[in-house]
Amino acid sequence: MQPPTACLIIIGNEILSGRTQDTNMAWLGNALNQAGIRLMHVRVIPDIADIIIEAVNACRPHYTYVFTTGGIGPTHDDITAESIAKAFGRRYVRNKEVQALLEKHYGGKLNEERLSMADMPEDATLIPNPVSIAPGFIVENVYVMAGVPRIMQAMFGSICNQLKGGKPMASASLAAFITEGDLAKDVGAIQDKYPNVEIGSYPFMRQGKLGTTLVARSTDNASLKQATDELRQLMQQFTDSIEED
Amino acid sequence: MQPPTACLIIIGNEILSGRTQDTNMAWLGNALNQAGIRLMHVRVIPDIADIIIEAVNACRPHYTYVFTTGGIGPTHDDITAESIAKAFGRRYVRNKEVQALLEKHYGGKLNEERLSMADMPEDATLIPNPVSIAPGFIVENVYVMAGVPRIMQAMFGSICNQLKGGKPMASASLAAFITEGDLAKDVGAIQDKYPNVEIGSYPFMRQGKLGTTLVARSTDNASLKQATDELRQLMQQFTDSIEED
Repeated sequence: MQPPTACLIIIGNEILSGRTQDTNMAWLGNALNQAGIRLMHVRVIPDIADIIIEAVNACRPHYTYVFTTGGIGPTHDDITAESIAKAFGRRYVRNKEVQALLEKHYGGKLNEERLSMADMPEDATLIPNPVSIAPGFIVENVYVMAGVPRIMQAMFGSICNQLKGGKPMASASLAAFITEGDLAKDVGAIQDKYPNVEIGSYPFMRQGKLGTTLVARSTDNASLKQATDELRQLMQQFTDSIEED
Repeated sequence: MQPPTACLIIIGNEILSGRTQDTNMAWLGNALNQAGIRLMHVRVIPDIADIIIEAVNACRPHYTYVFTTGGIGPTHDDITAESIAKAFGRRYVRNKEVQALLEKHYGGKLNEERLSMADMPEDATLIPNPVSIAPGFIVENVYVMAGVPRIMQAMFGSICNQLKGGKPMASASLAAFITEGDLAKDVGAIQDKYPNVEIGSYPFMRQGKLGTTLVARSTDNASLKQATDELRQLMQQFTDSIEED
């Protein structure tokens, strides 16, 4: 059985301009792996309503879960919530439960802009935000989260137990200063021998020297161990200095 | 006139699994900005031929330039070049010029796997690789580059003078420990006043405290300066401690 899949849509001009180095993708990829859900597709798009609507509607039929990050704060460029309402053809309304949360949290500092964080698609399910109160929300299989990593991580923590995952994907990696071309043929043969293990070969460059990281991943622990043992023996033909992880 | 646009397709299971933190997106976003080209869209996809073909063909009509990173090495999971050939309906052939480069570089160490790095779509234009020799290539508006950051950067350096850019986008950022909700209304008003400046508001969290970075971007330097001055004056109503960049 195929594991549940996920798609991440990162919304934000600051990521595309290179001003901000995204870290949510790798964090979420890891966290989903541990939940037995496979991140299959990521898009990074600007804060433009039509593009957000198009991306959400293009992706949501194809993955078990779609996550979005970014664009749910109180400023003029925070247009994610309204765009999601449009994507689903739902009314964009003030959520009374969120309004009450914000009133309690901000008291006299609750201005109209902050209150706008209570506006979301009608009948959305809330994603609690233990860090900064204003919640994310869920519409069908689309999970709308904040872009600030610590807040996104807290939101994901709030709902990850509700996600239906498959068997977690275990992995092992072996890194050494051997170039890919010296390993390629034998790694290919090991891959052919273990079709239920996914073997990746990733070159790296450190201190001006090329090396290779071999990564084996599988939901079957016995096959993973066997394949990893063979990859290790292959590398040991070149060097004893192998980093394992 | 709209500036030329770019799309980046990052190919690699290791990025989606969270094993590898991508840095090519931010680097390329920055480098393209400096060349007056706007990175508008990024996709991250797995090493699966049909998905690569679909992504390349979905994106290439919509952007001036499409860049890909990853999957052009010598191992079994390096399927980008063949997938690009299929996307364009071109034959996948051994490039004699690349074969000669590899023969010269590897000498007696040139095995069949390394030689496979000379296989590419017919009539592709080469992208020189001063770091590790095996070149990337160009087919129409699609630029196929390596995934290793240092090699990708060197490849981009080889061809960036050939790209047709618009006016470079200049930017200024102001960061302070003021929450977005306190700035939102006035930032919105400043945005309305300067339609040719793109103002973004990005919350951050450091040492457990929330703050906001305001980023102004424009191809018009005078408007950029005026808008930035107004944003600074706004922030100074809350604090004198503003980080500018």
